[in-house]
Amino acid sequence: MDLSTIYAAVQKELAEVENQFRLIVETERTTFPNLHQMLRHVLTGGKVIRPALTLLAGKFYKYDASRLLPMATASELLHIATLVHDDAIDKSDVRRWRQTVNKIWGEDKAILLGDYLFAKAGEFAAATDSVRAVRLFTQTLATISQGELRQSFDARNLNQTREDYLQRISRKTASLFAMATETGAILSQAPEQSVEILRDYGYNLGIAFQIVDDILDFTGSEQEMGKPVGSDLTQGTLTLPAMLILERYPEDNPIKRLFQGGDAAENIRQAIELGRDPSIIDRCYELATEYSDCACQKLHLLPNEENRQALRGLTDYVIRRKK
Amino acid sequence: MDLSTIYAAVQKELAEVENQFRLIVETERTTFPNLHQMLRHVLTGGKVIRPALTLLAGKFYKYDASRLLPMATASELLHIATLVHDDAIDKSDVRRWRQTVNKIWGEDKAILLGDYLFAKAGEFAAATDSVRAVRLFTQTLATISQGELRQSFDARNLNQTREDYLQRISRKTASLFAMATETGAILSQAPEQSVEILRDYGYNLGIAFQIVDDILDFTGSEQEMGKPVGSDLTQGTLTLPAMLILERYPEDNPIKRLFQGGDAAENIRQAIELGRDPSIIDRCYELATEYSDCACQKLHLLPNEENRQALRGLTDYVIRRKK
Repeated sequence: MDLSTIYAAVQKELAEVENQFRLIVETERTTFPNLHQMLRHVLTGGKVIRPALTLLAGKFYKYDASRLLPMATASELLHIATLVHDDAIDKSDVRRWRQTVNKIWGEDKAILLGDYLFAKAGEFAAATDSVRAVRLFTQTLATISQGELRQSFDARNLNQTREDYLQRISRKTASLFAMATETGAILSQAPEQSVEILRDYGYNLGIAFQIVDDILDFTGSEQEMGKPVGSDLTQGTLTLPAMLILERYPEDNPIKRLFQGGDAAENIRQAIELGRDPSIIDRCYELATEYSDCACQKLHLLPNEENRQALRGLTDYVIRRKK
Repeated sequence: MDLSTIYAAVQKELAEVENQFRLIVETERTTFPNLHQMLRHVLTGGKVIRPALTLLAGKFYKYDASRLLPMATASELLHIATLVHDDAIDKSDVRRWRQTVNKIWGEDKAILLGDYLFAKAGEFAAATDSVRAVRLFTQTLATISQGELRQSFDARNLNQTREDYLQRISRKTASLFAMATETGAILSQAPEQSVEILRDYGYNLGIAFQIVDDILDFTGSEQEMGKPVGSDLTQGTLTLPAMLILERYPEDNPIKRLFQGGDAAENIRQAIELGRDPSIIDRCYELATEYSDCACQKLHLLPNEENRQALRGLTDYVIRRKK
């Protein structure tokens, strides 16, 4: 299944989310042209997985576009806000085949634009008129920031366990996927058992998504990914493939050398070569697949087979994707 | 009236807000010691004007501590989050007589701590169970970020009008003061006319507060202020005293030279000397006082004289303060 088939049931609503984005961009066209340009730059493109999750999760029970649409918009805005801050922190130059905000406008304006997007995301979350959804939204932002802080404090730390890794990606990625599906369930008045099933689906999908992201940082190509490969290593972030390399070559290896201050370009090149070893990549995909399988485990308890198919299709897509 | 007299009616609740802060700090003591230390560093001290405003504004009608306390906590957390990001952007070393987060932990961690504090602020706003309060909260964060962005884009721009200045401080400071009093009114079920009176009070007080802040950046001492004077000029921010200097010396002056790339230390020293001229400072205080008078104009329409006295006392304090 390709994304457009998976998204079929919510295609119209996703277009509406994009329309909301255009409105946000247009509002500032004459009042604050600099902000207008920055918004236009960041609010285009993207796989819109998170809003799709909110909308798909909202399809099982009482579908209420007037609350699901703002929440879907909030999910994507929150995601984009974190990307803008991440890029500023990582001093990344390129994302989605384009220069980053910090590269074009500088780090300071990237911080402030991120704050503005957090606020806009919050406004849309509040527009659901559901305090429960807003509470989930704010808790998720706290969890994500905590995950990013832990990652920052753990940079170049070679003594991290697989458990540390899973906790970290659970905070920085899976929490938002879980929020997207859980709010979709809540806002469509799903019974509590279904809320839990949909939250768990989002959570496990998010873990699988991030593991694949971390694999692609080794196996992808800059052309396909729209950003440089090896960027996790550049930041000193120990991801699953990197951990497997450390386990396989416990004495001396390029990641150790890199994190201990060795030549960046050469050690990253060598690490990527080692990480592309099929036995390492296969092991990572195995773990990602365990999570995506787990995501689907209880879907049969939900009504509507067409919708369940879409969610299952999304887990396949997340594993198979090349960007 | 000193602050403790003004705060008398809400002293117990302000202690409760500080208690909430301690809880936030303590939660992470064993789970995330690095975050614990950062939180302990930023969640102490401060004039707690914003939570006091929420609590005092909440005293006129149906005082409901279970909703006013979380909102008061949210007001101060939001304020602190913006300070953390401001200091990172300005590369400031000192605030409240102590090193800044960015100075101790670096700019990257300051960005993430700020995000975490925004999220925590949002959690407390959501704990009011009032979607209207949450909506105000998120709109205020958007307004503040926009104000900061405008300030950043306007840095070293000599062609700014007094109107530009007032719009900027209205966004970056008065909006939060107005949110503090408006939410206090809303959460105590004030009638709409009183909500408006209290919002306008907060707004005008905020403008007066920021004008005095900008004066103190010229006339204050580092010892009293707990941060270097002249920091606005260092950032290229044109405040009211600076504008009056530009008007008085239209041909050549140290601010022009500074913004056009001249020697920083020497031009800032000269600008501060010019700015301390009584006729300039008096003119600034005059404008600040106009706003603080305006803040009090409709207070007589509110019930409870003791409370009105506290709000009037606060406007005096804001004008008279030396830090």
